[in-house]
Amino acid sequence: MLISSTQNPRIKQVLALSQKSTERRSTGLIVVEGHRELLHCVNSGAQVQAVFYCPAIYNASRGEGDVLAMCEGERFEVTKPVYDRIAYREGTEGIMAVVKPRMLTLDDLQLPRHPLLMVLERVEKPGNLGAVLRSADAAPADAVIVCDPLTDIYNPNIVRSSIGAVFTVPCVPCTTAQCIRFLKQRDVHILTAQLQDSKPYYDTDMRCGTAIVMGTESTGLTPEWRQAADAHIRIPMNGRLDSLNVSVSAAILLYEAIRQRQHSM
Amino acid sequence: MLISSTQNPRIKQVLALSQKSTERRSTGLIVVEGHRELLHCVNSGAQVQAVFYCPAIYNASRGEGDVLAMCEGERFEVTKPVYDRIAYREGTEGIMAVVKPRMLTLDDLQLPRHPLLMVLERVEKPGNLGAVLRSADAAPADAVIVCDPLTDIYNPNIVRSSIGAVFTVPCVPCTTAQCIRFLKQRDVHILTAQLQDSKPYYDTDMRCGTAIVMGTESTGLTPEWRQAADAHIRIPMNGRLDSLNVSVSAAILLYEAIRQRQHSM
Repeated sequence: MLISSTQNPRIKQVLALSQKSTERRSTGLIVVEGHRELLHCVNSGAQVQAVFYCPAIYNASRGEGDVLAMCEGERFEVTKPVYDRIAYREGTEGIMAVVKPRMLTLDDLQLPRHPLLMVLERVEKPGNLGAVLRSADAAPADAVIVCDPLTDIYNPNIVRSSIGAVFTVPCVPCTTAQCIRFLKQRDVHILTAQLQDSKPYYDTDMRCGTAIVMGTESTGLTPEWRQAADAHIRIPMNGRLDSLNVSVSAAILLYEAIRQRQHSM
Repeated sequence: MLISSTQNPRIKQVLALSQKSTERRSTGLIVVEGHRELLHCVNSGAQVQAVFYCPAIYNASRGEGDVLAMCEGERFEVTKPVYDRIAYREGTEGIMAVVKPRMLTLDDLQLPRHPLLMVLERVEKPGNLGAVLRSADAAPADAVIVCDPLTDIYNPNIVRSSIGAVFTVPCVPCTTAQCIRFLKQRDVHILTAQLQDSKPYYDTDMRCGTAIVMGTESTGLTPEWRQAADAHIRIPMNGRLDSLNVSVSAAILLYEAIRQRQHSM
């Protein structure tokens, strides 16, 4: 079926899901745009309800494979003006889908004996969470837990900035209290990133079950986390600016855990 | 003096310097916008030629100190409409300046006996260079060398994304051939980040004089660098995406060098 009007109800639904978290919450649906993002989404087992593609833009023979052919659900061809209207970003690859993603809870996590977890409390910028998810995919971390999030984890900015890692890494939203209880029950060591009363991260053993917990760039972690911590760690900063980006800090800490686990200290 | 017209020649000069690298090159002048950026710039010894501030926005009592009082050179009050016209970004702090920055060459670098250098070849996105400079400030690295750059290092996007680290870290543009000669003459070990024929970065000694060399996200390093290398290193990636951001990779590698230097291996 070809859609050539931006007033088409399916197009209006795509726009509402892109723009409104309330719409995503009430329907349990999200929009996934772009080739790699959709590929990782489909491979994660998410259920595609409808796929929209623009034949003038979409190229099935890109390196990663023909994701259009992999999508179940209804299929709609759209004209270029319609695609340009629903495209969330420039340089997109002519394909997007309405998807019912996994909605994981802490109880769904299947963790190894000595898990490595990244916990972010009240992360402010979707781009930062996306970048942390990319590093968590690479390291890899066993899960990313987002405490008291300010946006839903399938916000289009997060899907985009993670390049789809939000689908490849188990990502769970919950409250800080739920997360602390979960970690304590499983004997996972809580390492909070903070400047006060802390020691350099590379002097901290991360080979046992470890949760690295980071707060916001502006206000840091809440007292609940500081009190629940088994150790306080910091990344030594010896420059003039005294600020590392959250996603850079997260990558340094995750990869130190990986290094220790590969390499005896 | 109060400027209330966007047609004022000084305002036109600010716009030209913000927008055109040719204008920056021919005059040796740049525009620095924002409180922290200008503070780091002034502290680096750069010469402020003219400062423009909007009394309706500028707040001298911000945490970092009154940078306006620290600026030499001509001083211009501008109206809010004029400031909004010249502001490069939103949320700026009502202050910007035309500055003659340091233009360092390799011969200007004063390095310790075992320097730690970050070398980026043909980095594509100004935001990536800015983020690398922030990490280089924090670690710290002794210098960042930018080989065959596609933009000038004082591009407003770099000043902005580095939050001023482009002024706190010695940053030198040069050609790849010049850089390789410089490193060889000083017996600095060249570690190239590449996937082929490489070993994990944490199995590589970075305690002697070390240059970590990274290429672009899309095409990697040129053959000149691969051949000049003393070792090829990689960050193991065990996820589905197989991609870490350049600035994240740079931070992981820089901090591993710092860790080794603090901590016997």
